[in-house]
Amino acid sequence: MPEPGVTPDWQREARTGVGEAVFCRGKSAEQIAAIVALADERRASLLLTRLSTAQLGALPQRAHLDYDGLSETAILDHGLRPPTPAPVGIVCAGTSDMRIAREAARTLAFHGHAAPLLADVGVAGLWRLLERADEIRGWRIVIAVAGMEGALFSVVAGLVPGLVIAVPTSVGYGVAEGGKAALSSALASCAPGVVVVNIDNGFGAATAAIKLLKGFA
Amino acid sequence: MPEPGVTPDWQREARTGVGEAVFCRGKSAEQIAAIVALADERRASLLLTRLSTAQLGALPQRAHLDYDGLSETAILDHGLRPPTPAPVGIVCAGTSDMRIAREAARTLAFHGHAAPLLADVGVAGLWRLLERADEIRGWRIVIAVAGMEGALFSVVAGLVPGLVIAVPTSVGYGVAEGGKAALSSALASCAPGVVVVNIDNGFGAATAAIKLLKGFA
Amino acid sequence: MPEPGVTPDWQREARTGVGEAVFCRGKSAEQIAAIVALADERRASLLLTRLSTAQLGALPQRAHLDYDGLSETAILDHGLRPPTPAPVGIVCAGTSDMRIAREAARTLAFHGHAAPLLADVGVAGLWRLLERADEIRGWRIVIAVAGMEGALFSVVAGLVPGLVIAVPTSVGYGVAEGGKAALSSALASCAPGVVVVNIDNGFGAATAAIKLLKGFA
Amino acid sequence: MPEPGVTPDWQREARTGVGEAVFCRGKSAEQIAAIVALADERRASLLLTRLSTAQLGALPQRAHLDYDGLSETAILDHGLRPPTPAPVGIVCAGTSDMRIAREAARTLAFHGHAAPLLADVGVAGLWRLLERADEIRGWRIVIAVAGMEGALFSVVAGLVPGLVIAVPTSVGYGVAEGGKAALSSALASCAPGVVVVNIDNGFGAATAAIKLLKGFA
Amino acid sequence: MPEPGVTPDWQREARTGVGEAVFCRGKSAEQIAAIVALADERRASLLLTRLSTAQLGALPQRAHLDYDGLSETAILDHGLRPPTPAPVGIVCAGTSDMRIAREAARTLAFHGHAAPLLADVGVAGLWRLLERADEIRGWRIVIAVAGMEGALFSVVAGLVPGLVIAVPTSVGYGVAEGGKAALSSALASCAPGVVVVNIDNGFGAATAAIKLLKGFA
Amino acid sequence: MPEPGVTPDWQREARTGVGEAVFCRGKSAEQIAAIVALADERRASLLLTRLSTAQLGALPQRAHLDYDGLSETAILDHGLRPPTPAPVGIVCAGTSDMRIAREAARTLAFHGHAAPLLADVGVAGLWRLLERADEIRGWRIVIAVAGMEGALFSVVAGLVPGLVIAVPTSVGYGVAEGGKAALSSALASCAPGVVVVNIDNGFGAATAAIKLLKGFA
Amino acid sequence: MPEPGVTPDWQREARTGVGEAVFCRGKSAEQIAAIVALADERRASLLLTRLSTAQLGALPQRAHLDYDGLSETAILDHGLRPPTPAPVGIVCAGTSDMRIAREAARTLAFHGHAAPLLADVGVAGLWRLLERADEIRGWRIVIAVAGMEGALFSVVAGLVPGLVIAVPTSVGYGVAEGGKAALSSALASCAPGVVVVNIDNGFGAATAAIKLLKGFA
Amino acid sequence: MPEPGVTPDWQREARTGVGEAVFCRGKSAEQIAAIVALADERRASLLLTRLSTAQLGALPQRAHLDYDGLSETAILDHGLRPPTPAPVGIVCAGTSDMRIAREAARTLAFHGHAAPLLADVGVAGLWRLLERADEIRGWRIVIAVAGMEGALFSVVAGLVPGLVIAVPTSVGYGVAEGGKAALSSALASCAPGVVVVNIDNGFGAATAAIKLLKGFA
Repeated sequence: MPEPGVTPDWQREARTGVGEAVFCRGKSAEQIAAIVALADERRASLLLTRLSTAQLGALPQRAHLDYDGLSETAILDHGLRPPTPAPVGIVCAGTSDMRIAREAARTLAFHGHAAPLLADVGVAGLWRLLERADEIRGWRIVIAVAGMEGALFSVVAGLVPGLVIAVPTSVGYGVAEGGKAALSSALASCAPGVVVVNIDNGFGAATAAIKLLKGFA
Repeated sequence: MPEPGVTPDWQREARTGVGEAVFCRGKSAEQIAAIVALADERRASLLLTRLSTAQLGALPQRAHLDYDGLSETAILDHGLRPPTPAPVGIVCAGTSDMRIAREAARTLAFHGHAAPLLADVGVAGLWRLLERADEIRGWRIVIAVAGMEGALFSVVAGLVPGLVIAVPTSVGYGVAEGGKAALSSALASCAPGVVVVNIDNGFGAATAAIKLLKGFA
Repeated sequence: MPEPGVTPDWQREARTGVGEAVFCRGKSAEQIAAIVALADERRASLLLTRLSTAQLGALPQRAHLDYDGLSETAILDHGLRPPTPAPVGIVCAGTSDMRIAREAARTLAFHGHAAPLLADVGVAGLWRLLERADEIRGWRIVIAVAGMEGALFSVVAGLVPGLVIAVPTSVGYGVAEGGKAALSSALASCAPGVVVVNIDNGFGAATAAIKLLKGFA
Repeated sequence: MPEPGVTPDWQREARTGVGEAVFCRGKSAEQIAAIVALADERRASLLLTRLSTAQLGALPQRAHLDYDGLSETAILDHGLRPPTPAPVGIVCAGTSDMRIAREAARTLAFHGHAAPLLADVGVAGLWRLLERADEIRGWRIVIAVAGMEGALFSVVAGLVPGLVIAVPTSVGYGVAEGGKAALSSALASCAPGVVVVNIDNGFGAATAAIKLLKGFA
Repeated sequence: MPEPGVTPDWQREARTGVGEAVFCRGKSAEQIAAIVALADERRASLLLTRLSTAQLGALPQRAHLDYDGLSETAILDHGLRPPTPAPVGIVCAGTSDMRIAREAARTLAFHGHAAPLLADVGVAGLWRLLERADEIRGWRIVIAVAGMEGALFSVVAGLVPGLVIAVPTSVGYGVAEGGKAALSSALASCAPGVVVVNIDNGFGAATAAIKLLKGFA
Repeated sequence: MPEPGVTPDWQREARTGVGEAVFCRGKSAEQIAAIVALADERRASLLLTRLSTAQLGALPQRAHLDYDGLSETAILDHGLRPPTPAPVGIVCAGTSDMRIAREAARTLAFHGHAAPLLADVGVAGLWRLLERADEIRGWRIVIAVAGMEGALFSVVAGLVPGLVIAVPTSVGYGVAEGGKAALSSALASCAPGVVVVNIDNGFGAATAAIKLLKGFA
Repeated sequence: MPEPGVTPDWQREARTGVGEAVFCRGKSAEQIAAIVALADERRASLLLTRLSTAQLGALPQRAHLDYDGLSETAILDHGLRPPTPAPVGIVCAGTSDMRIAREAARTLAFHGHAAPLLADVGVAGLWRLLERADEIRGWRIVIAVAGMEGALFSVVAGLVPGLVIAVPTSVGYGVAEGGKAALSSALASCAPGVVVVNIDNGFGAATAAIKLLKGFA
Repeated sequence: MPEPGVTPDWQREARTGVGEAVFCRGKSAEQIAAIVALADERRASLLLTRLSTAQLGALPQRAHLDYDGLSETAILDHGLRPPTPAPVGIVCAGTSDMRIAREAARTLAFHGHAAPLLADVGVAGLWRLLERADEIRGWRIVIAVAGMEGALFSVVAGLVPGLVIAVPTSVGYGVAEGGKAALSSALASCAPGVVVVNIDNGFGAATAAIKLLKGFA
């Protein structure tokens, strides 16, 4: 019998094109273990996000999980198809934003899409980004990940024709504490065609891309 | 000679896939007239957004503009192609949100896309939305427009496979004043795959859709 | 002699229809123990809310308390009447909101009311809620518990005739951090007849229901 | 044919127990006139809230409407039953809060409930409130209307057994500008059993009371 | 030699009527020890506020300090005059507010004033406060300490002729988190003649009273 | 018969030491006229604050009122005693703050206290303030009025022994818009013994002073 | 005799290197006229900022003033030295930001410095800015003016060696309303060496530059 | 091979005049160690900011670093030139602000500039600051560091001719929590010519000064 209040939504993929994923922050190890057990029973693959190493350590099924510490994601693989190249890529402003960029990349991989990830292309060193502009112009969807003042979103959207999905991160201090400054920058961008997800929501940006790749295939 | 500080970006369409548009709020009639004159000279079509009736009245070129008072948009047509059906549609929560929904529809039409607009499908009368669910499931991109508490975004995203682009509106009072409540709802949505634009930015949602339609054509 | 500043309000039930309850966060174990001792002396039943397991462990009277770890509530029973069915029920959006939903259920039980609790009926999987709609329509008072964007409040209020008491929870991150997004959604609801209590205040929602059940009995 | 986006929800009363009402702020005179015409056609009664005198003046049907300038409400009467006493009453802190208190009273009257309204019982002159305490103790539901610091909500809830529905108002300046201080006071009340609606939402408080009166009749 | 950046202001009492006090939060044990050593050297009395038990434990002079754990204050006594009754008193809403009320009382005592402290006179149990009203009417200055919604400030100011110095506290959760709701209530009070200090600033309220007692002596 | 909701509190002076005053913003001319008529009937003096020239023009009793346009105050004099010097004074940072400083001065005068008002002693020209320091040191109560960043409050409190009552004003733009920056400065002052009233509340600062002058007389 | 509260600070230039300027918003025409009269009397030059055309029209001295409507600045010239080139320049993101850029340019000119102003170099059309990069690299101080998301500040600071003084403007809507988003971007910039002034404070940025030019001359 | 996402910007100094620095908060010890290793390999000096003692302890290169615990800065010295006097100085309001003042001083020293640091010159003891005014008047650039209400910024800017770079700190509680009150004070200063950096950004203030010293040398 599952824990009270723990009922995965196995039909989600059929209905919305996005597979079942579990946001683990705020859940007990018992609740997470129960969900993994249900997935094992059904031979269903599962993506776990924001799974801390402490939570991982308390799971009886930890040996079967493909865990990535930087992004705090784990994958339970019951027959996933190997990722193949897709017209989507990820750019990332700074070293501290990598954990969110990797969450997006892992979510894409879980759904079968291999996406390049360009790191350290923040605006303070603009020429690094300009050197990669031709590569980025080849993507239909650009997931841009940045904290601090989030200037990356507007700069990229002004340079390339693809849709920019902005992921503000909670990297920063003072007025940037918690990611509010980057979020405002993304929403107020002077460059047309930027869309935005919640702060640190690399998973959400990736699922938006997955819906598009499926819808337009 | 143009007004100082008034230089349209005629290459934008080639570079980013979105045509030149002018946000008129905060600009003087002289500045707007100068931009329209430049477009006329180049025989370039132009979309004007947030053009008040007062601003319109002060333009020498007002007779040549296709103006829509509800959405405060005007179109200068120098050979636009007629809109054809595209896999995108608009849903709108309440009567007061119509002005933003129409801004999105007009922006799509300016770029050659005809999109259906379903009005009065707010969450307080849920069955109206459910009755239209099959129709909405046929769209690859859903532009959802809502103010107040913005519950529409999550409900639609849970029902259909297309990407939901949420446009929070400034409709509301008290805690919803200015659209902050609807914006937070859109960003915090429990349904995966919702992306968001700034409050009242129907133009931005439409340009995101246009980029996608072009990218995946 | 009681601790300075520790004087329960034993007349509260007679005056307002709600029994004495103690909010324990921010109180020392000494202060809590003194209150329980006073209750034991008077043979008065007592409800303790937000009592952490650490605080519980430090109480000399811990063995006599009926403690529930998920909701962090404890009941001191000096002759409570057993709960009987009442025309009130609880719906809960996600697994992480359960601790607040259970606080409401335990507060109702302490006052003699047994209330059903429907979990995992969040808006992202709307059909689960729709399947239970007939059951919910039978309740005069619906306590709805949700964090994130709080779309549940409006959806339920649009579906059923009972009064919806919305309890926003602090579940969420980014713009939903601390529960402000869910609170705004509840207050700005487009559905008429939603009333709201403070973030995470399951106790408050239950006491409102108790006042009504008593007033209209 | 109705205006696009103007479709009243005639089944609302059957479904939720609250009749059709139209929030007029932000709607054009044409939109409002269209709704009134539809109601006339169906011989349906209608409540119009936040209808300014300017909007009223532009309506062709203004002569048939029972308009109250203080509360900015209008009633279209196609056979309403006359109000009869109900176990609900309204208390109001200051002269400036009267417009919201009257909105609540008019909404109750539209649904057939006559409710007493006690004005000028703010906390700065506490004895005025205490003199009326016995009368207020006889009500099952107390709608309390206050701006500024909103101390009235807690004081009333500590004095009487009925449910207090708090309506914070936008009366105030400085930190109380727009009603946020009163709203916070209502939500944070130290007295158990206070429930809250949005700032200036006298209509919402009344509809909550109407749902309860219907549910428990 | 003192630590760099550690220079007490020994002339403060002569200049402003308030003795030297040290706010210890954010200071290292070395910095605090250096200040106490300087005071010992000059035979100057000293008041230490927000001194945690951890900081106290690290001080070499801890044995000479009169420490009160609830208020986190310590007094170094080099010949203070014993407190005598003054026309000032303290009222306190709840048990959790006691630590701030005690900080005010200890600050007054350090400056030679004995002040009564009435606890548990919050607004939810109004009659407790009314029973003490005559006593409070005898004070020229009332220091009122409350968190949550801070209704106490207005109620007291409406009842008594003395000046009310409001001290909002950080007691509360949700919208009251950190004390902002109580602060707004204090500033927006409908009762004339309430003055306010920063959240949790019991020391500041006491020093204001001390200045007045000195000025009008 | 008075207007509904218009009942002055004639006992306020006896109870709290402060005479009846009416805050006129948000009240209709009819409501204000009714209050003045009641005062005339009782031969009671009255202070009207925030009375705009438009509201004044609509009053039948305007000829009997002593009106000051800068501070928007009017006095109805039915035998007030002439102001005599009191140990209180007002300092004011800039020209734009004068309207609030004058409101304080007029409120003091209405209650019989003549207080000096030093203008243009803002912190940007510090020596002007230092030149007047000896005069200010002679006051027991200093009402300090400042907008923008509100540095005046701390500077004055560090220079003089009297109690500083800070009145932040809404003078400023950008981060100082509406007076929030000055309010925060007042509350967070590093100088002990500053107390604060709401933004633009010159009346409140004066009534606090009046209570003290009465209490300590 | 000057108006009460109107005393220009004629020594400011000697003391701080910046001449006397008057911020006119919130001042009456009488107050401004009195200041201009004092300046005329002393033969002192004067800079008036935020002087609306309505205020200008009411001034008896309007014919002697050099007024610029876009920036709302007026100059009273009693022997100013003609501007000469200085190592400072201004860049401006959009047409709507020009009024603030011009305020900075006029303030520099009033103090004898001629500065180039590059308009329409916003980030959405990045190549326009890159084309001018060599010119900007020649300036020691760059005043950068931008609203919306303020990405310009970081991009410029990453490209050039001069100090960037960021002036966020109130241009924008939704989350950018009032300039808060641009301000946060400026403060949180990932590029080292950006300093910031208040929203719309073109005057402040220019005075900072003037102090530097004087200090390092 | 460097860690993914760890690529120092070695050309920064040539391009912008400021040497490479690494902000360590939020980076793992592995990432920091990799950067230090790269610097060692290139024989490049490096400044590490916000390096906690815990992070330091985990670095293999810790013995080669010149670490300062108060400011949490470390310097890797591969041939830095010894600091020489520069026309810049630092003033600091309180003991708790020293850590940020020292960060600025260490950043200046890393770039070859020796700057005096005056501590304990806060506004509450104004004469301490006035005693040092002549010294401060000799500096072309004044870095002013203050938390709480930040009155120091305006007072210093009104006293001296040099440019004031304000560094608000997160020192404070209640309304000053996190440094927002000091930041607002800095931006809203009534004294012309104050420029501002982010909260606690002593590094940023120093780099602005370094750019100026280089530009005007």
